[in-house]
Amino acid sequence: MKTDIEIAQEAVKLPIKEVAESYGIIEDDLELYGKYKAKITDELWQQVKDRPDGKLVLVTAINPTPAGEGKTTTSIGLADAFTRLGKKAMIALREPSLGPCFGIKGGAAGGGFAQVVPMEDLNLHFTGDFHAITSANNLLAALLDNHIQQGNALQIDTRQILWKRCLDMNDRVLRNVVVGLGAKADGVVREDHFVITVASEIMAILCLANDMNDLKERLGKIIVAYNYAGEPVTAAQLHAVGAMAALLKDAIKPNLIQTLEHTGALVHGGPFANIAHGCNSVRATKTALKLADIVVTEAGFGADLGAEKFLDIKCRKADLKPDAAVLVATVRALKYNGGVPKTELSAENLDALKKGIVNLEKHIENLQKFGVPVVVTLNSFVTDTEAEYAFIRDFCEERGCEFALSEVWAKGGEGGEALAQKVLDTLEHKESHYHALYPDEMSLKDKVKTIATEIYGADGVSYAPAASKALARIEEMGFGNLPVCMAKTQYSLSDDQTKLGRPTGFTINVRDAYVSAGAGFVVVLTGAIMTMPGLPKKPAADGIDVDENGVITGLF
Amino acid sequence: MKTDIEIAQEAVKLPIKEVAESYGIIEDDLELYGKYKAKITDELWQQVKDRPDGKLVLVTAINPTPAGEGKTTTSIGLADAFTRLGKKAMIALREPSLGPCFGIKGGAAGGGFAQVVPMEDLNLHFTGDFHAITSANNLLAALLDNHIQQGNALQIDTRQILWKRCLDMNDRVLRNVVVGLGAKADGVVREDHFVITVASEIMAILCLANDMNDLKERLGKIIVAYNYAGEPVTAAQLHAVGAMAALLKDAIKPNLIQTLEHTGALVHGGPFANIAHGCNSVRATKTALKLADIVVTEAGFGADLGAEKFLDIKCRKADLKPDAAVLVATVRALKYNGGVPKTELSAENLDALKKGIVNLEKHIENLQKFGVPVVVTLNSFVTDTEAEYAFIRDFCEERGCEFALSEVWAKGGEGGEALAQKVLDTLEHKESHYHALYPDEMSLKDKVKTIATEIYGADGVSYAPAASKALARIEEMGFGNLPVCMAKTQYSLSDDQTKLGRPTGFTINVRDAYVSAGAGFVVVLTGAIMTMPGLPKKPAADGIDVDENGVITGLF
Repeated sequence: MKTDIEIAQEAVKLPIKEVAESYGIIEDDLELYGKYKAKITDELWQQVKDRPDGKLVLVTAINPTPAGEGKTTTSIGLADAFTRLGKKAMIALREPSLGPCFGIKGGAAGGGFAQVVPMEDLNLHFTGDFHAITSANNLLAALLDNHIQQGNALQIDTRQILWKRCLDMNDRVLRNVVVGLGAKADGVVREDHFVITVASEIMAILCLANDMNDLKERLGKIIVAYNYAGEPVTAAQLHAVGAMAALLKDAIKPNLIQTLEHTGALVHGGPFANIAHGCNSVRATKTALKLADIVVTEAGFGADLGAEKFLDIKCRKADLKPDAAVLVATVRALKYNGGVPKTELSAENLDALKKGIVNLEKHIENLQKFGVPVVVTLNSFVTDTEAEYAFIRDFCEERGCEFALSEVWAKGGEGGEALAQKVLDTLEHKESHYHALYPDEMSLKDKVKTIATEIYGADGVSYAPAASKALARIEEMGFGNLPVCMAKTQYSLSDDQTKLGRPTGFTINVRDAYVSAGAGFVVVLTGAIMTMPGLPKKPAADGIDVDENGVITGLF
Repeated sequence: MKTDIEIAQEAVKLPIKEVAESYGIIEDDLELYGKYKAKITDELWQQVKDRPDGKLVLVTAINPTPAGEGKTTTSIGLADAFTRLGKKAMIALREPSLGPCFGIKGGAAGGGFAQVVPMEDLNLHFTGDFHAITSANNLLAALLDNHIQQGNALQIDTRQILWKRCLDMNDRVLRNVVVGLGAKADGVVREDHFVITVASEIMAILCLANDMNDLKERLGKIIVAYNYAGEPVTAAQLHAVGAMAALLKDAIKPNLIQTLEHTGALVHGGPFANIAHGCNSVRATKTALKLADIVVTEAGFGADLGAEKFLDIKCRKADLKPDAAVLVATVRALKYNGGVPKTELSAENLDALKKGIVNLEKHIENLQKFGVPVVVTLNSFVTDTEAEYAFIRDFCEERGCEFALSEVWAKGGEGGEALAQKVLDTLEHKESHYHALYPDEMSLKDKVKTIATEIYGADGVSYAPAASKALARIEEMGFGNLPVCMAKTQYSLSDDQTKLGRPTGFTINVRDAYVSAGAGFVVVLTGAIMTMPGLPKKPAADGIDVDENGVITGLF
């Protein structure tokens, strides 16, 4: 069987100019990055912005399991299927992070015959967006420490610095560091931390900004520290905004690549789905809606985190109205949720399926709470049985959801036609009544409670004293009207990653909170959230190589 | 008067495809990065590599002063002048570092009417080469610390780690840090250091590598640490080579941009001129020599560092044979060397000129020692007087050097025609007998002594005990046959930056030494060398901005 990278490298790619042309984009509105990647110019946006929007379809999933769900793969295959059915479709996806490519996770370009290409470029530097974000993030950090070194006119309290440096690398030793050692000329000593670039607030800002002016306004609002009087110090006060924006001037333009079947994909931005909102950029989604009749987009992790944030943060802030949601599951993942260990998922097990399907059930109910019609799809696997499919189909149809198998991994767009047809039926016959889950003016604690009880199924929320204090302070500072961004384990609906299925009788425990004032949300932390991954004993980097012709192997 | 960025932004650029075409490069051999930047494919090199070489002209300068010399400006203007005179000329330059753009220094795209464009792109992320080097550098660091964390099978001594992390940022607090704090999962605590990306050995390697195979071989040889037995541990032993090379697969391709007058410029790589060799990549220089009849290239700092390393390291290793050297000075800088303070350089002062011209004299003699014909040029300034010019002209002609004024800053290529004509005369009538200063088989201390006495004019060399020990160890490890790369202040021929003119009666004090085994040279340190700059009280970042149309201001 061929690996993903082999399939990708054997693919016959169209010059990206031709892909663009199929959406009515002329070469002058592209900034080419080699033959198969391009950025979309601002001029194009100006030309198309008054067109009516296409339909917006969100692809989300049950809680992730080691069995794998294939959300990106499904998104890509679904869009290819729309193309095969004669629709003008486009995909809006996140860019993958570089660091994890060298660890365990591998890339994020889809899989099998449902991939976007060139996958090596996408997984490595792509068009440099993340490097630009890293630079802007670290320029702000350097200006902050330089301000302290040069007399600290803003009276920044070095014990209350919030801004962290970043690198797009899995590098655990940078989680907790001491900087500024040496002599007087080498800075002021303080504790510092590095996060991976996708965890930078600038990533979230880039993804939520409408345009350059909005980007600059948001960058200026970033709270980098508190001063000795306890007042916030912002990036604007450090005069960092213009230079950061200059570093980001190309990064804010969406990137166009293609699927193996030449459907256009705007791949742009990639914020974390725990401490940030986990969706591709607003600009990419909005541009795609102007260029295509149907846009398939994706949100990070399971629907409890990804879809909730897509609907409560991105759609609310960007005034987007999703028309349908596709909820991805696999038979294997549902059995895993039903208590079957990873090694025994290949055997038919209707009892376990029945026990585990409650996870799917809860996510269906959740999406319906936002007023969005739901289509469930199973990313098929060779060990699945007809009886298992039948059980799940009946289960979904009883809950008012369309259901279709997806075989896009093995068959590309052709394997997604059944699903595409169900989505088209839904778009035609079921009206979306999308609304956010809670109003802006609700208190922060009530917002958290609403998400915890309505979406996670918790009985309530408990707050550590630091968390209550932090939320009160955030409201005092005037940020109470922002949406909340929950940082929670993706593996469970609860905040305990061992509780699979549809847990009940639990409380969500809030440890701390802080405001991402530039991004425009309040991050609520439950448990410890890893913002700088490490490398495993045998890193993927070990197996990566490139030959004298520039052909890369071992990337997955 | 217009600023450099205003001149650059008002310039009518040709699509880079058309610039490439004028050198016989078809679009298929380009990888476009927007409309005005492109990488040159490997395929092009394969097509042209058996062609005869054009003439190679090195532009170098007297020791830098606060008055400024304009080496890059002269290189660009000279190439434009060749183009005006009907020659097929090309420039091979270094890429500027991002960090210093936000500090004091500003960019490095030439100045006035002798610039390469697009200058904003060149000074910011350009085609991402430096970001790729940063990533490869930091991947190696992460793999190193991960190896220690995962059991340290190679028995790496954490007190003897040589490999440093890097960022392309002026950030003094990262000079000396402690990493790995926190819990067991957060790594092993140790002292660490960040350098600016141009100081990474990978930058030097990229610039000296002939092709991908050579690059990989060199990456593998990098010594990252010593083990408890005192033996070197290499990047190859950490299995880091393939993944690093994958990160560098595009970065090793030269970048093509253009001057304001549409002469092609291959701008590629930019290693430090103290701890590294300070020249653009071998690939760029060699490619340019196949595409043009005359190639103008440049070396960092003054001729004592830049030209010496160009001639003793780059030309030796890459089998390049320079045909002429252009030595840049200014009347103001020569007067500064003669003891005139910066504020009084505008007044005619023949006495000071006479006193300071000994600096120029020594560099002329030095270049002649390498067997390369020398043309001296004065980058003209409005306050210069005819009497001053006449004095310098006579001085040069007495020493067998052609001499010409250069007015390229104010007039572009037209202002360089007199200089270009003198260089053409030299190329036609004076044969180059280029040879390196010392043979490979000379001992390291004898190599240092040869450079110190012959080039710097020192009486001798004194070694700190650590330096003697380090050099002996390097020879024991089998690296005694490598050239030496002197890390010395650029402001003086001596190792004391206050000694201007042509100092005599001094000793060069060697503090330490280490081998850059991948790059292929032994770095000999005199005094403290700054490998991570800081930001000034009012950083240039303060004045940089970008408007809603993406137009950048304040970059210089």
